[in-house]
Amino acid sequence: MRITDTLGIDLPIIQAPMAGVQGSALAIAVCEAGGLGSLPCAMLSSDSMRREITAIRSHTGRPFNVNLFCHSRPVPDPAREATWRAQLAPYYKEFGIEMRGDEAGPSRNPFDEEAAVVLSEFRPPVVSFHFGLPSPALLARVKAWGAKVMSSATTVAEALWLEANGANVIIAQGLEAGGHRGMFLSKDLSEQVGTFALLPQVIRAVKVPVIAAGGVASADAVAAALALGAAGVQVGTAYLLCPEADTSAVHRAALKGGRARHTVLTNLFSGGVARGIPNRLTDDLGPLSPAAPAFPLAANALTSLRRAAESTGRGDFSPLWAGQNVTGCKEIGAAALTRELMPRS
Amino acid sequence: MRITDTLGIDLPIIQAPMAGVQGSALAIAVCEAGGLGSLPCAMLSSDSMRREITAIRSHTGRPFNVNLFCHSRPVPDPAREATWRAQLAPYYKEFGIEMRGDEAGPSRNPFDEEAAVVLSEFRPPVVSFHFGLPSPALLARVKAWGAKVMSSATTVAEALWLEANGANVIIAQGLEAGGHRGMFLSKDLSEQVGTFALLPQVIRAVKVPVIAAGGVASADAVAAALALGAAGVQVGTAYLLCPEADTSAVHRAALKGGRARHTVLTNLFSGGVARGIPNRLTDDLGPLSPAAPAFPLAANALTSLRRAAESTGRGDFSPLWAGQNVTGCKEIGAAALTRELMPRS
Repeated sequence: MRITDTLGIDLPIIQAPMAGVQGSALAIAVCEAGGLGSLPCAMLSSDSMRREITAIRSHTGRPFNVNLFCHSRPVPDPAREATWRAQLAPYYKEFGIEMRGDEAGPSRNPFDEEAAVVLSEFRPPVVSFHFGLPSPALLARVKAWGAKVMSSATTVAEALWLEANGANVIIAQGLEAGGHRGMFLSKDLSEQVGTFALLPQVIRAVKVPVIAAGGVASADAVAAALALGAAGVQVGTAYLLCPEADTSAVHRAALKGGRARHTVLTNLFSGGVARGIPNRLTDDLGPLSPAAPAFPLAANALTSLRRAAESTGRGDFSPLWAGQNVTGCKEIGAAALTRELMPRS
Repeated sequence: MRITDTLGIDLPIIQAPMAGVQGSALAIAVCEAGGLGSLPCAMLSSDSMRREITAIRSHTGRPFNVNLFCHSRPVPDPAREATWRAQLAPYYKEFGIEMRGDEAGPSRNPFDEEAAVVLSEFRPPVVSFHFGLPSPALLARVKAWGAKVMSSATTVAEALWLEANGANVIIAQGLEAGGHRGMFLSKDLSEQVGTFALLPQVIRAVKVPVIAAGGVASADAVAAALALGAAGVQVGTAYLLCPEADTSAVHRAALKGGRARHTVLTNLFSGGVARGIPNRLTDDLGPLSPAAPAFPLAANALTSLRRAAESTGRGDFSPLWAGQNVTGCKEIGAAALTRELMPRS
């Protein structure tokens, strides 16, 4: 069965859910073009989830994907938090901001009972997870309404785990991908491999369909992923300059700037390892720091700084997520971009 | 002009030169199958180069490639060497080996006047370089007999530099590739990107043909590389189990073992950053160590240890080069493997 049949879509192109930089508008445009639009929900309240899914349902009759995180909630570590805040103190001083100590950042919640209730009201046809899968009980609820479940694997071991634990579709997330690495069985970054090596090994290891993610930014790349045996592709970075995305002004400027040619894996912005464009913070502290609190707590102490810098047009303290190939970013509508990504056959 | 016409070969498949693990036999088999066989010369004396090139010429009338390194000779650093040897001292003790302090390892020489004289006697039709290009004068000598010159780029900047400095063909070496990273303009490992991201960006940046290297281990992968716009592919790891390769017993065992599923970038074995299968030394010291002397000097102090361990069937101190996908390694003749790598069209 082809992935287009499995998911009920026309084109084997999944728009990657990108929490914090897009909502329903991008998803709707991609769905209407025949791809699978995705709504990232990890940073949404229940009310926002309802509002956004309602928007999708009211603008398109096509299948869509709702994405949630499955991380464990971290145990706060006051000593680590203090070390982290001490490292940020000079910037607070520079911007004349008082550090209160209880700044709250963008929350990133794991899929839970409350979110399951919201989803069950809408019964989205596709639900994707990042950082593994939810508990068997929660997963069973999602599957009970017939949703196809997808999740990201960054290693062959993760792909085998996802298949054994009920994923219907596996997204092989190569090292080229922007945003958070979906890694959940190992924290060893040296195990993270490129799409060209990961994709065929995952395909060889599992029986479920495998979607290629990481570095897919053109019709040629889609053709290449399909040639390697992928059932479809997931594309994120290329959509970041579309008008339907909520990408911030500093993020858009960074994507169009020279530094986007060289992305880094960094844990500074959330505590989780993610790929983005380097900026002043990653330059100063090094992109990977043991001081950064556990995911997603590192974001809290950065919130005021980020806001202050962004208000002056600077992305010095903002996460500037991007994959290793930004040449596919175009300032065109997401529907047109989706169609351009299809190889001419 | 197609790469097969440019290089005078039948198949767009280049066998990657792998110094230390292969000589003329592997190159001959690949040439005879219609691909481009390569002879790695960086670790050969002038006499050995003459002998090996003579062997190729006497066994095949087809074009072949001769590969050389272009690194700068390092300035020995006695303090760093002492630190390095102190770290290795416990192993010497364990194996009952005396550390003399002047152990010589496998030499890796940059292309020089002497090597140019040898090459000029044979006028090989293709000459490839790793770590940049030789001096303009030396390069001009190679080009004077009509050789096509290839070199490896690990970033877009390196590709542009190689094109501007006379390379006829550029090998885009993705992060998935085994063996030494060809990086020569930057030492920042975070700039090293996966094949899926590197290849299309290099193709976009230069006018010369671009060869895909890194993770290419099957006919599907060759098809994918061609779909991404590559003029051809360079395949290394997949050939390591062929009977024509000189791959050591411990290296062959490692390629067939479980640890080959997870390779690491390490500088322990030569001082240069290269991808290989982890072993006791990389476990104990960490794969990347500031103590390792500059390329290629780190190999010297390991030589006796490596020999002692290998004599008991252990690869604890041996470089076990491999790319991120060893599933293409087959114990079949290199000619058959070359033919299997061609996509059915």
